[in-house]
Amino acid sequence: MATLGSGPVTPPVLVVGPRAAALETALAEAMPSDVHLSRIDTVRPLTPSEQDAEIALGPPDQLAPMLSQLPRLRWVQSTWAGVTPFIDHPRRDYQLTAAKGMFGAAMSEYVLGWVLALERSILRHATARHWDDRPDRGVGDKRLGIAGVGSIGREVALRCAPFFDEVVGLNSDGHPVEGCRRCYGMDQRFEFARGLDVLALLLPQTEQTTRLADDRLLDALNPGAIVMNAGRANALDLPAALQHLESGGLSALVLDVLAEEPLEEGSELWSLPGLYLTSHTAAPTETHAIARQFLDNLGRYRRGEPLHGLVDFTRGY
Amino acid sequence: MATLGSGPVTPPVLVVGPRAAALETALAEAMPSDVHLSRIDTVRPLTPSEQDAEIALGPPDQLAPMLSQLPRLRWVQSTWAGVTPFIDHPRRDYQLTAAKGMFGAAMSEYVLGWVLALERSILRHATARHWDDRPDRGVGDKRLGIAGVGSIGREVALRCAPFFDEVVGLNSDGHPVEGCRRCYGMDQRFEFARGLDVLALLLPQTEQTTRLADDRLLDALNPGAIVMNAGRANALDLPAALQHLESGGLSALVLDVLAEEPLEEGSELWSLPGLYLTSHTAAPTETHAIARQFLDNLGRYRRGEPLHGLVDFTRGY
Repeated sequence: MATLGSGPVTPPVLVVGPRAAALETALAEAMPSDVHLSRIDTVRPLTPSEQDAEIALGPPDQLAPMLSQLPRLRWVQSTWAGVTPFIDHPRRDYQLTAAKGMFGAAMSEYVLGWVLALERSILRHATARHWDDRPDRGVGDKRLGIAGVGSIGREVALRCAPFFDEVVGLNSDGHPVEGCRRCYGMDQRFEFARGLDVLALLLPQTEQTTRLADDRLLDALNPGAIVMNAGRANALDLPAALQHLESGGLSALVLDVLAEEPLEEGSELWSLPGLYLTSHTAAPTETHAIARQFLDNLGRYRRGEPLHGLVDFTRGY
Repeated sequence: MATLGSGPVTPPVLVVGPRAAALETALAEAMPSDVHLSRIDTVRPLTPSEQDAEIALGPPDQLAPMLSQLPRLRWVQSTWAGVTPFIDHPRRDYQLTAAKGMFGAAMSEYVLGWVLALERSILRHATARHWDDRPDRGVGDKRLGIAGVGSIGREVALRCAPFFDEVVGLNSDGHPVEGCRRCYGMDQRFEFARGLDVLALLLPQTEQTTRLADDRLLDALNPGAIVMNAGRANALDLPAALQHLESGGLSALVLDVLAEEPLEEGSELWSLPGLYLTSHTAAPTETHAIARQFLDNLGRYRRGEPLHGLVDFTRGY
């Protein structure tokens, strides 16, 4: 009989969600042979053996509704960085770990890719039908502000810093973060925003972050600034941002996240000049990366060591 | 009477070309008061005093044809990185310095901006009219090869390295270059090309570089590779590249430079799928940067010190 944590592993590890099959394949290469996986691709009633699961791996939107059916659950590994569905659920008697360390690279590509596409006129050049050598602006004299410099935002800061004149960050209390020339606390958000040419919102969803980028904060940005939101929709006051875009206060608004997803096909947002919507693709979960984190955490769990990416339910991330 | 080099400065410093007025303004801030500038915005016969100039600053295409009218010329500061018009001219009795150190940042923006625009589907997202969350590829598992890792290419390598799985370089003899995991010499160009997902051509125009990227080299790239040329047009066998693009061997071809510029409006190249033309905007001369280099070199010239960016006429760059 194998052991899991301190006890036996008759109860399976549940792997849930549309990526479950791909995850199972990725896990198979390095999974301890005494661990039994049970896969739930689509929402369905759990079998009695599945209901005994002690460990679950999957996306928050599918796993959180199952919490009430899993009385013996001790640890959940989320495949997302954002874990709001678990925070909104009253249950607290298990360890929750969020996907960590795999989104920084993709998010850096997203932030820098979009800023360069806009500032180097890549969208214009791509559709040019005649010679057009008007000089592009570039970002070497621009100031980038990253609201949310946790594990993802820090990597964005580090990778973007060589391109910008200055990168500054916003976090809970203004503690210094590598890659940022300076960090501001939540109570200094207007000071943080003042003079930014690019504002990237990479914040978790908490009460503190809701409408953090409001009319007044957007007013503090440099004229013609670019605003991007690739964190959670709650951080941006969308009507205010659209107003700033229309008035020319903002030159572009790049949104990966929206309050309601997917956005319906007929929405006027799809064709608003200067608004770019990227359908929540900024930092997709990479199957092999999440498999690696799960296996690493599984080893830690069985050895009774602290897990990586552990979520603080009170803080919300 | 002021001194310039070892002698008097009655002869003016000629500032030539369409940017001459902007350059004069930028220079004014820090120009030694004993140096007299003479500005030539458009091609015109030189006055006798201008013909006595010992120093000239301007773009090679305008300055090289004036060489025969400037018998006392001792030093030319080019506002471009490429100096072919001077190399093609027989005169050799003066010091030629090329613009240096100001193109690396712009070129890095160009190379990474275009690769990210393509690999992160920025062009597709920018025109999307419905939710489309197909995952993008990204460049984290991609291999970038930079042909030409001098002062510009080296900076591109350094800034791109954190984004790619691997960056390799091609230079004259394969000497190591910071930012490149490995460098290959000109005689190893096929080995350099093998397995590249992105090939960036940033080469000077020399006999050695002509048609360096030919059919056989393009064959060595990974299927679906991206090829960019932001150096000089001679390095790429354009018909071969267009064939590889049409057959799908290349997924995209991004060209900043062409044998004949500007490309005529009716050319079919403007509408070829997968071909992106950027009208020689990759690394424009930044007026203040060239002013800084000129002033720094002016000090060196007057102190009899070696100049920065000195061109070797035999090597051609």
